[in-house]
Amino acid sequence: MRENEKLKIQKLCDIENLKVHGRTTGCISPLTLFWTGSAIELNAKGTELWIEVEVDYDVCEPWISIVINSVPVSRQMLVAGRYWICIFRGMNKDVIKNIKVVKDVQAMSEDPECLMQIHAVKFDGEFFPVEEKQYKIEFIGDSITSGEGAIGSKAEDDWIPMWFSAIDNYCNLTSEAINADYRIISQSGWGVYTSWDNNPYYNIPKYYSKVCGLLTGGENESLGAFKENDFDSWQPDVVVVNLGTNDSGAFNNPEWKDEISGKTHKQRLNEDGTYNREDLQAFEEAVYNFLVQIRKYNKKAQIIWAYGMLGIPMMPAIYRAVDIYVKATKDNKVTVFQLPNTTEETVGARNHPGLLSHKKAAIELSGYIKELLK
Amino acid sequence: MRENEKLKIQKLCDIENLKVHGRTTGCISPLTLFWTGSAIELNAKGTELWIEVEVDYDVCEPWISIVINSVPVSRQMLVAGRYWICIFRGMNKDVIKNIKVVKDVQAMSEDPECLMQIHAVKFDGEFFPVEEKQYKIEFIGDSITSGEGAIGSKAEDDWIPMWFSAIDNYCNLTSEAINADYRIISQSGWGVYTSWDNNPYYNIPKYYSKVCGLLTGGENESLGAFKENDFDSWQPDVVVVNLGTNDSGAFNNPEWKDEISGKTHKQRLNEDGTYNREDLQAFEEAVYNFLVQIRKYNKKAQIIWAYGMLGIPMMPAIYRAVDIYVKATKDNKVTVFQLPNTTEETVGARNHPGLLSHKKAAIELSGYIKELLK
Amino acid sequence: MRENEKLKIQKLCDIENLKVHGRTTGCISPLTLFWTGSAIELNAKGTELWIEVEVDYDVCEPWISIVINSVPVSRQMLVAGRYWICIFRGMNKDVIKNIKVVKDVQAMSEDPECLMQIHAVKFDGEFFPVEEKQYKIEFIGDSITSGEGAIGSKAEDDWIPMWFSAIDNYCNLTSEAINADYRIISQSGWGVYTSWDNNPYYNIPKYYSKVCGLLTGGENESLGAFKENDFDSWQPDVVVVNLGTNDSGAFNNPEWKDEISGKTHKQRLNEDGTYNREDLQAFEEAVYNFLVQIRKYNKKAQIIWAYGMLGIPMMPAIYRAVDIYVKATKDNKVTVFQLPNTTEETVGARNHPGLLSHKKAAIELSGYIKELLK
Amino acid sequence: MRENEKLKIQKLCDIENLKVHGRTTGCISPLTLFWTGSAIELNAKGTELWIEVEVDYDVCEPWISIVINSVPVSRQMLVAGRYWICIFRGMNKDVIKNIKVVKDVQAMSEDPECLMQIHAVKFDGEFFPVEEKQYKIEFIGDSITSGEGAIGSKAEDDWIPMWFSAIDNYCNLTSEAINADYRIISQSGWGVYTSWDNNPYYNIPKYYSKVCGLLTGGENESLGAFKENDFDSWQPDVVVVNLGTNDSGAFNNPEWKDEISGKTHKQRLNEDGTYNREDLQAFEEAVYNFLVQIRKYNKKAQIIWAYGMLGIPMMPAIYRAVDIYVKATKDNKVTVFQLPNTTEETVGARNHPGLLSHKKAAIELSGYIKELLK
Repeated sequence: MRENEKLKIQKLCDIENLKVHGRTTGCISPLTLFWTGSAIELNAKGTELWIEVEVDYDVCEPWISIVINSVPVSRQMLVAGRYWICIFRGMNKDVIKNIKVVKDVQAMSEDPECLMQIHAVKFDGEFFPVEEKQYKIEFIGDSITSGEGAIGSKAEDDWIPMWFSAIDNYCNLTSEAINADYRIISQSGWGVYTSWDNNPYYNIPKYYSKVCGLLTGGENESLGAFKENDFDSWQPDVVVVNLGTNDSGAFNNPEWKDEISGKTHKQRLNEDGTYNREDLQAFEEAVYNFLVQIRKYNKKAQIIWAYGMLGIPMMPAIYRAVDIYVKATKDNKVTVFQLPNTTEETVGARNHPGLLSHKKAAIELSGYIKELLK
Repeated sequence: MRENEKLKIQKLCDIENLKVHGRTTGCISPLTLFWTGSAIELNAKGTELWIEVEVDYDVCEPWISIVINSVPVSRQMLVAGRYWICIFRGMNKDVIKNIKVVKDVQAMSEDPECLMQIHAVKFDGEFFPVEEKQYKIEFIGDSITSGEGAIGSKAEDDWIPMWFSAIDNYCNLTSEAINADYRIISQSGWGVYTSWDNNPYYNIPKYYSKVCGLLTGGENESLGAFKENDFDSWQPDVVVVNLGTNDSGAFNNPEWKDEISGKTHKQRLNEDGTYNREDLQAFEEAVYNFLVQIRKYNKKAQIIWAYGMLGIPMMPAIYRAVDIYVKATKDNKVTVFQLPNTTEETVGARNHPGLLSHKKAAIELSGYIKELLK
Repeated sequence: MRENEKLKIQKLCDIENLKVHGRTTGCISPLTLFWTGSAIELNAKGTELWIEVEVDYDVCEPWISIVINSVPVSRQMLVAGRYWICIFRGMNKDVIKNIKVVKDVQAMSEDPECLMQIHAVKFDGEFFPVEEKQYKIEFIGDSITSGEGAIGSKAEDDWIPMWFSAIDNYCNLTSEAINADYRIISQSGWGVYTSWDNNPYYNIPKYYSKVCGLLTGGENESLGAFKENDFDSWQPDVVVVNLGTNDSGAFNNPEWKDEISGKTHKQRLNEDGTYNREDLQAFEEAVYNFLVQIRKYNKKAQIIWAYGMLGIPMMPAIYRAVDIYVKATKDNKVTVFQLPNTTEETVGARNHPGLLSHKKAAIELSGYIKELLK
Repeated sequence: MRENEKLKIQKLCDIENLKVHGRTTGCISPLTLFWTGSAIELNAKGTELWIEVEVDYDVCEPWISIVINSVPVSRQMLVAGRYWICIFRGMNKDVIKNIKVVKDVQAMSEDPECLMQIHAVKFDGEFFPVEEKQYKIEFIGDSITSGEGAIGSKAEDDWIPMWFSAIDNYCNLTSEAINADYRIISQSGWGVYTSWDNNPYYNIPKYYSKVCGLLTGGENESLGAFKENDFDSWQPDVVVVNLGTNDSGAFNNPEWKDEISGKTHKQRLNEDGTYNREDLQAFEEAVYNFLVQIRKYNKKAQIIWAYGMLGIPMMPAIYRAVDIYVKATKDNKVTVFQLPNTTEETVGARNHPGLLSHKKAAIELSGYIKELLK
């Protein structure tokens, strides 16, 4: 192998024109990528670029996608260790390449050792400023928003990082369609009130205000994941909330039992198969309260509750909650939007939306957002 | 990271149910993958699988795609060195996964150090036999068949391995459509008579009978690349030849000069822009002779000269040559098929066919092949 | 012209195997087709078939489409008069053809002279029974459901029957997708509470229980259009209500004034552009009351309020009204479904949904209906 | 019905801005439309327009399509008689509408009584000049070019005019894609040398130089169908010849016998299923001679032999013939282009190309023509 002797190592903190996507602690020595869709972006004029990553996990390894001039060209599993990854080599030294290295897997609330950091780059050229996109969008959701099943055969059934994608994902596709930067806050199995299996602690609102509060463990704490997020530094034009699918699942799954306290929780069905009024009410209050919370941190954003990629059983409840919220607060920038359902033709791995379903959702959602932002 | 203590290393030569795709020397200790689309395939029942690769190059690094249950889930650059790559982890130990690790870049005739080998696997389960596909196809071609530009932005102009794909490639797509295993023999810039820049030594027929004869250097020689290919071991049902695009380019490019002997070569245009009759004749003889050669080694195959993804200027000459061949030999299993042209909508990187163009070509070509094989 | 001497005239009332689509008075001597999508259907074994129509109008002429073996093959304006139309000729006498002659234009509430009747057929063969479809659907709506603009250039702006279609219409396409017979009750410009221009008398519920009560004039009265509809004879599995678009328009249009009484009506906007609460309440009550009415006549049907092909401004109000209805009545077979919005790519004539928009709506709606009918 | 008293009858010959499509005798009192795709085109500023047709036939009735502002809005059978057809009514008097009335069925060589004429229009406005399109194309072919089977169910098997279309036809679609006016010369079952059933008199070249020479009977003679065509008045930029499909069929069908002279003809297969060399030679000579003839009348046109929508068995012979022609004449503006084959997904009625097949052919052919005309 011919060595490129012009490569020079730079720490991320020394790169003036580095653009970081996704909620972070602000620390870039090193940079920790917590959420799916988190990324570094560079406009790189030079022939060869490497990044130095540090990776760990107990069970769930991170994956990355490499996007060059807006086209994904590589996607790979990151095994544990600290090592260099080549992003490109042999390119024209006089041409600026836009590159993005994107975390392709969600934050892993149940694997406290899961870690993905970027320390430095090795490069033989110069970085140029990355232009701001016209808009900013924040997506909040569950496995659908985590892109679970967006890649992989329909036959796949294992719950592993390989089937997650931040690229073949309606968040990315919607943002491209309206020329927006985006952040994703998501967790498979979680809801706005409970998780799919009735755990009342597994809901996004509980941790929304933190950098990445749904993580666990001392390591993540010391990284700053549980600190308050700095909302002022990134105010979105649109917040899309795609929650409710797991809250609906809870009604159809056994009760959750806290193994320590013995406490249980269950969203109940009536005998005729309808939702228990009281438990549904609790869900609606959770929606209401989450809207209050989102608005607190995102003063100017259009908030869209976008729901439906795996059916619409909670839609009446969502509409009720939003309706009460809008009437009570006079906040007219909160609306509900139904996403197209996933079908046999559009389903992906693990019975989740596949790429075709994400594409359809992105077409409809981006059309709606364009109308709102007019 | 939690170690998987059940992983055991096996040399490739010790795996009974290993399936190797692509022309090789027969040696699998280690296995050298020469051509794009070359691959190992395994039916693996276990939770975690790694492969050990050895990689080198002077300029052009190899890339691989990982295909699980027929869906590509990873694609990555292989930097120089000998190291382990994780193919999957955390999967259900009781389910058989079909996995393919595919070389995603062509043999590199101008980089004698370019090397990709697989030494061993590390696995915690059992391998099962891989079923034979219904048909076998061999594809012979140039950059189009190498999938150059099938991935990457339309803006890309560097000649680097990153823009090559064996997956988003009409060869792979055609083979999937008719349930065939396939091999690819291809080289960017080469023709059936000369290369795009009039080099009369850069043509596929000259090296067709060897394992991978267009490579250079002592290293490749010692690997066995220049040995006669064992045609008996893999007799295709169909041979697709997609050559002529660079032969046409030669007429429009400057003469080639051998820097040592001073000898030159040039396919000439007439003053009115048409092809010089004599030079075109040489091309047609090359087509004729190549058909003779292909038939010599592939006794039963349908031979299809498939041409047109970047225009059809050589089509009359190809038809003439095939016509003369068929009349002279009474060999009725040789035909010509026009592939759909690449358009502004379907072009990819480096002004080459993009994925959409490869898809269109595969639809038409597989339809034609199905008719022939009826 | 060679006369077919085997043709025999039969009155409709003498055809045992005649199938009539759409609400009628029961009279078939002659048969009056009132609504768009109304039709006669025949399984005809013979070579040549004609129908005798009687047509009149002051302004708005009827159109028909002819559908043979499920494929539309002819579409034509019907000018005034009583005359014969050839449906097919020269066909194989031994083969049964399924034929449908479909009224392609809505009932015309403002043209009391508009009339389309079928008196008789002229045929040289035998009619066979027409199979029942698996399901029955009733569609209730406005111009969207009338297929206004589903045919014709985007440049068209005249309000004329030519741009209406019962074929390139989400009602027809949805019904095909789920194998259903269907009826359409629709009127351009009308709403569930008022018309687009605030006329409180132009709403569908007012006339829903009649055969075709929104028509006017003595002629229609004597034809029986204002009689009670015989709901028992055709009980749908699904009622789709696509109303609200004109009710929304009313808020943005000038007040309506009854030229005789001087009475006016106006759905008001607040100063901040939101809907006046009281007027919106009136709309919601109209939705509620219409649901009560629909349920009265359609005891077993799933009722779907399907809305959104031209935006979703009334969706919160619709959800509120449906919610109150469901709670008050315990009627769980009433749901709301959002249809995909029309875009620049899918728009048709007169700024209305084009064929592509109707196709998208049909895909989503039929998917939803299939789930409901499981 | 309210009479429009402003309608005035004008003979075609009195309309200054009339545009006639298709080969005619020059006579427009009345205008006879012979070929499929023949049409009148008008830019009409007025509210209501009728045309007076005269129609006759023994067996095969004509059909028309009405195209308004480039969108087909009506298609209807024309029964025998002389009568008025309403093209539009109720339109804005101040807007110019572009309208085309297109003959949707081929010339009927076996029905000498088949006649379609336009005598006059009835209109309440003014006609404006129709712009010339950028290019002119002539299409020469068989049933494929006649659009046989482009409309109708796959189940249809009767040979009747209903299944013919000049609209859902690659000729129309190709011409739209390159902004061209077009003419069609076509006849189902015919070839360049013989018909599908070996009749050596049923070939297009025999009648190419006449207005519509393949018609028969004294009526057509007196109309001028057998007169020399005035080629100077309409010189195409491109001539597309799509012949060969029936010539190929002849090899696989029984001999033709002249019932009067007893003379027979048969294109023979060899015992091994290949084409008899001598008979194939006759076909190739017919191709050669037809090219000579086409060039004689179309001095400047690119001539494209476009073939393949129902397979490519004659392609080698076509290439040979064109090759010999080009070499002999130095005429470099003659090329061969392969059209995409029809598949199960794209087939229409009567096992002929359906609309999807015509669309695919038009995309490929128009792309090729654009390259040629650059």
